[in-house]
Amino acid sequence: MAEKEAKKMVEAITSMEEDFAQWYTDVVKKAELIDYTSVKGCMVIKPAGYAIWELIQRQLDDRFKATGVENVYLPMFIPESLLEKEKDHVEGFAPEVAWVTHGGLQPLTERLCVRPTSETLFCDFYKNDVHSYRDLHKVYNQWCSVVRWEKETRPFLRSREFLWQEGHTAHATAEEASERTIQMLNVYADFCEQVLAIPVIKGQKTEKEKFAGALATYTIEALMHDGKALQSGTSHNFGDGFAKAFGIQFTDKDNTLKYVHQTSWGMTTRLIGAIIMVHGDNEGLVLPPKVAPIQVCVIPIQQKKEGVLDKAYELRDRLKGNFRVKVDDTDKTPGYKFAEAEMRGYPIRVEIGPKDIEAGRCVICRRDTREKIEVPLDALEETVGALLETIQKEMLERARTHRDAHTYVAHNMEEFRRIFGEKSGFVKAMWCGEQDCEDKIKEELSVTSRCMPFEQEEIEQTCVCCGKPAKKMVYWGRAY
Amino acid sequence: MAEKEAKKMVEAITSMEEDFAQWYTDVVKKAELIDYTSVKGCMVIKPAGYAIWELIQRQLDDRFKATGVENVYLPMFIPESLLEKEKDHVEGFAPEVAWVTHGGLQPLTERLCVRPTSETLFCDFYKNDVHSYRDLHKVYNQWCSVVRWEKETRPFLRSREFLWQEGHTAHATAEEASERTIQMLNVYADFCEQVLAIPVIKGQKTEKEKFAGALATYTIEALMHDGKALQSGTSHNFGDGFAKAFGIQFTDKDNTLKYVHQTSWGMTTRLIGAIIMVHGDNEGLVLPPKVAPIQVCVIPIQQKKEGVLDKAYELRDRLKGNFRVKVDDTDKTPGYKFAEAEMRGYPIRVEIGPKDIEAGRCVICRRDTREKIEVPLDALEETVGALLETIQKEMLERARTHRDAHTYVAHNMEEFRRIFGEKSGFVKAMWCGEQDCEDKIKEELSVTSRCMPFEQEEIEQTCVCCGKPAKKMVYWGRAY
Repeated sequence: MAEKEAKKMVEAITSMEEDFAQWYTDVVKKAELIDYTSVKGCMVIKPAGYAIWELIQRQLDDRFKATGVENVYLPMFIPESLLEKEKDHVEGFAPEVAWVTHGGLQPLTERLCVRPTSETLFCDFYKNDVHSYRDLHKVYNQWCSVVRWEKETRPFLRSREFLWQEGHTAHATAEEASERTIQMLNVYADFCEQVLAIPVIKGQKTEKEKFAGALATYTIEALMHDGKALQSGTSHNFGDGFAKAFGIQFTDKDNTLKYVHQTSWGMTTRLIGAIIMVHGDNEGLVLPPKVAPIQVCVIPIQQKKEGVLDKAYELRDRLKGNFRVKVDDTDKTPGYKFAEAEMRGYPIRVEIGPKDIEAGRCVICRRDTREKIEVPLDALEETVGALLETIQKEMLERARTHRDAHTYVAHNMEEFRRIFGEKSGFVKAMWCGEQDCEDKIKEELSVTSRCMPFEQEEIEQTCVCCGKPAKKMVYWGRAY
Repeated sequence: MAEKEAKKMVEAITSMEEDFAQWYTDVVKKAELIDYTSVKGCMVIKPAGYAIWELIQRQLDDRFKATGVENVYLPMFIPESLLEKEKDHVEGFAPEVAWVTHGGLQPLTERLCVRPTSETLFCDFYKNDVHSYRDLHKVYNQWCSVVRWEKETRPFLRSREFLWQEGHTAHATAEEASERTIQMLNVYADFCEQVLAIPVIKGQKTEKEKFAGALATYTIEALMHDGKALQSGTSHNFGDGFAKAFGIQFTDKDNTLKYVHQTSWGMTTRLIGAIIMVHGDNEGLVLPPKVAPIQVCVIPIQQKKEGVLDKAYELRDRLKGNFRVKVDDTDKTPGYKFAEAEMRGYPIRVEIGPKDIEAGRCVICRRDTREKIEVPLDALEETVGALLETIQKEMLERARTHRDAHTYVAHNMEEFRRIFGEKSGFVKAMWCGEQDCEDKIKEELSVTSRCMPFEQEEIEQTCVCCGKPAKKMVYWGRAY
C-alpha cells in the first residue's frame, strides 16, 4: 500500500531527462509552490513557495542593512509623463507595461502605468529630497511587486507580476556610485553561493544586453541543471544620466551645483526557480537548509503503537529551538509521507518507530544524497546540526562541479557551433567588442552573451566570430 | 545658537491645540515619515516611516503564525467578471477601484481592476484548491498593497494606495469561521495594546457599517488625541455567502457536498497614523519602544573634546546587543540634536559630556514625559531596559486614561447633541437596532456608529433616538 501510493506520487513527475520543462512544471505544482489563476500570466505563490521567499527576503535584507541600506515604499503607479523623461528607459519598458486609464468611475486625465521598475519614481523623489551634499548618499531599497506584460510566462521565471526588491541609490560622486554597483553585485553573489548554494559568474553585460538607461549593467549568471543560464541578479550604474533627465542636483562642499550619480539593483522570485532547477531531482524539490521552511521532518513509523507519536513529538521539541522542524502525524502511510517529504525537498527526514525506540536510535535520511544513517537518540541535535551544514556545503560543491563540467571553450566558430549543437551549458569565447559579431552569434547559434566575466582569460587573441583582435572573453549560453 | 536652531525646528510645528490636522501633517513631514509624490493621492513612505511598518509587520506576523496562519501571495489584478460575482461586494468596491485597460500596446479583452481587497481572488483560488474536508481549514494571509481611488487623502490615514495585510480563511463549519473571526480580532486588540500602547474598544459593526458582502464585521476602535475615532482593524465573518457565489464546495466526512465558511481580516499602515495621533505631542512624534526603530539615541555633548565621542560609541556598543541604538555624531549642535531626537520620537535620549564622564554618569531623558535622570554609567543597560518597559507600560496607561476621560454617556438626544456640540470623544448611547435611528443620528450629529461593543452596559432601557426598547449600547464618534 505504502509503496503503491508513494509510487503514484513520484510517477506523477516527468523525469528531467525526458522533458526538463515538464519536470519543472510538475515539481512546482506537486511541491505546492504555485498555482495558476484566472488572471492570465499571474500566479498564486502558495504557503510552501512563499515561505521560501520569506527566508530569502529575511537573509538578503539583513545583508543589505549591514551595508547601510534603508527600506522605503514608493507608489505602484507611474504617470506616463514621468516614465517618458529618460529616453532609453521608456523605449525599453513602454511596450510591456500595464496601463491604468480609469480611477473609480472617471477616466484619468493622464494614464498611469503599473511600475515595471521604479527608477523614474525614485528620481522624482530624490529631485525633491536631495539639496546638499549633506543629504547624500541615499541608499534606499523597496520590497514590492512589479508588472511586465510578458507574452510567454512560466512559474517563478517569467510572469506578468512578480515579487522583487529594487535598490535605488544616489551619490555625490561617480566613484561612489560605481563602488556601490559592484558592492551590491558582490552581496548578491555571496548570497547565492552561501544561502542558496548556487555558484554564479560575476560579470558585465554587453552594450546590447544592458538595462534601458544604464551606463553599465553587471550581472550574476547561474547554470541550471539542463545547461541553460539564468540571470539571477543585476546591478546597474546609471552615472548621471537619469539625474540630468530629471534634474537631480545638489550643492557640493565647494558650493557648486552638481548632478548626483545613481545605481539600481534587483533580485526577484525567479531565485526560487533557480533553486528548483539547480538542486531538484526526479523525486522533486531539494532545498538548501538555509532557505528550507522545514529543515527536519520527523516521520513516525507505526504511529498507532503506543509511545511512537509521543516520541516523535519529543524529538521535534528537542530540535525546534534550533531548527525548523515538523512531525508528519497525518494518517497517510509512511511510504507516502517519505515520498511527500522528498517531493517538498525537506533537507532531513527523521524516521522513528517502535524498534528504533527500543534500540534508542532513529534513522536519518538526507534529501540531497538520499543516504541513510542510524543515529543514537542522544546524539540527535548534534548530528542534525552538523548534517545541515554538510548538506548546505555539499549542495554548493555539487552545483559548482556540475557548472564547471558544463562550461566549454570555443576557439573558433566551428567549435562554437559544434558545442551548442551537441551540448548545453556555458561557452567561453573571445569577442572583438562589436555588436555585429554579437548579433551574428546570437542569430546563428540561438544563444545570447551572458556576461563579460570579471575573471577574464585569454583563450585566443582574436574574436571567435570575425577574427579581429579580441577585447573580452564572454560567457555565452541559452537563457531562461 | 543651539537654542535658536532647536527653537526653529520646534516652531515649524503647529501646536495640536491650535490646529490638530496641521499638527499631524507637520509631524508626518518633520519626523520624515512620509513625502508627497507626483502621483496624486499616493505617498512615499520614507525610511523612518517604513522602519516602523517593518516592526509592526514582524510582530504582527509572529502573532499570526502562532495561531497557524500561513503567508501566500495572490495577483494584484482582478478580472472584472470575478469582482462582479458577489453582488454586495462589487457594489461596495466598484466605485473606487482603478482599472487597467491596456497591457503593453494592446487593449485588454477584459479590463482588470487593481485589487482594493482580495476576497474574490481568494475565492477563485480556494474553489480549485479545496475539494475535501482534508483540505480544510485554510488560514492564509498576505502582506501587500491595495488601491482605492479616494477623493480626499491624508498621509497614512487615507491614500489611494496603502500597505496592509489581509487574512482570508476557509473552514468546514460556521462555528469554526465564527471563532476565527473573533480570534483574529483579539490578536489585533492585544497587538494594539501590548505593542502600540493603544487601548481599543472591541465590538461589532452595525448592518449599515459592515463590510460589503460580510455576514458580520467586527472592529477595534481607538480614540485619537483630538477625540476622533480611528477604526484600527477589522475582522469579517462571511458565512457561506462568498462560497455560494463562487461555488467553493468540499466533500465532508459524511460524504456530502458542503459550502465552506469564510473570514477575512486586515490591518493597514494607518496604524502609523494612530501611533502619531495617540502618542504625539507638540515636540513631535512619541514612539512606543516596541515599534521605535531607534529606541535609544546617544547624544555627545562637546563632542570635539577628547574622549567624548569614544565614550558615546562605547555606550552604544554596550547597548546595541539588546536595544536599537544610535549615536548622533553629526556636526549639529546638541540643542538641535535634542530637538531632532524629540521630533523623531526616540523613546530614550542619553546625554554624555566631559563632566558626565568625569563623574562616571550620564543623563537619561524620557521622550514621553521629558523627565531627566542622572544614571551611573555602570547601571546604564539595566536602567535603559527597565525604563523602556516602564515607558511602554505608561504610554498605554496614559492613552487609556485619555480615552476614558473622553468617553461620555448620552441618556437622551438633548444630551447627545450637547456632548457632540461641546466635546469630542466616544459617546455611549442605547439603540433600538433600526437603521432609521442610526441614519437620523448620523445626519443630525455628524457622527457614525463606531461599534456595538462586546462589553455591553444598560445605560437606559430605551433607544436614545426613538424611545423604543433598546437592543444594544453603541459607541458613537466622529471618525477618520
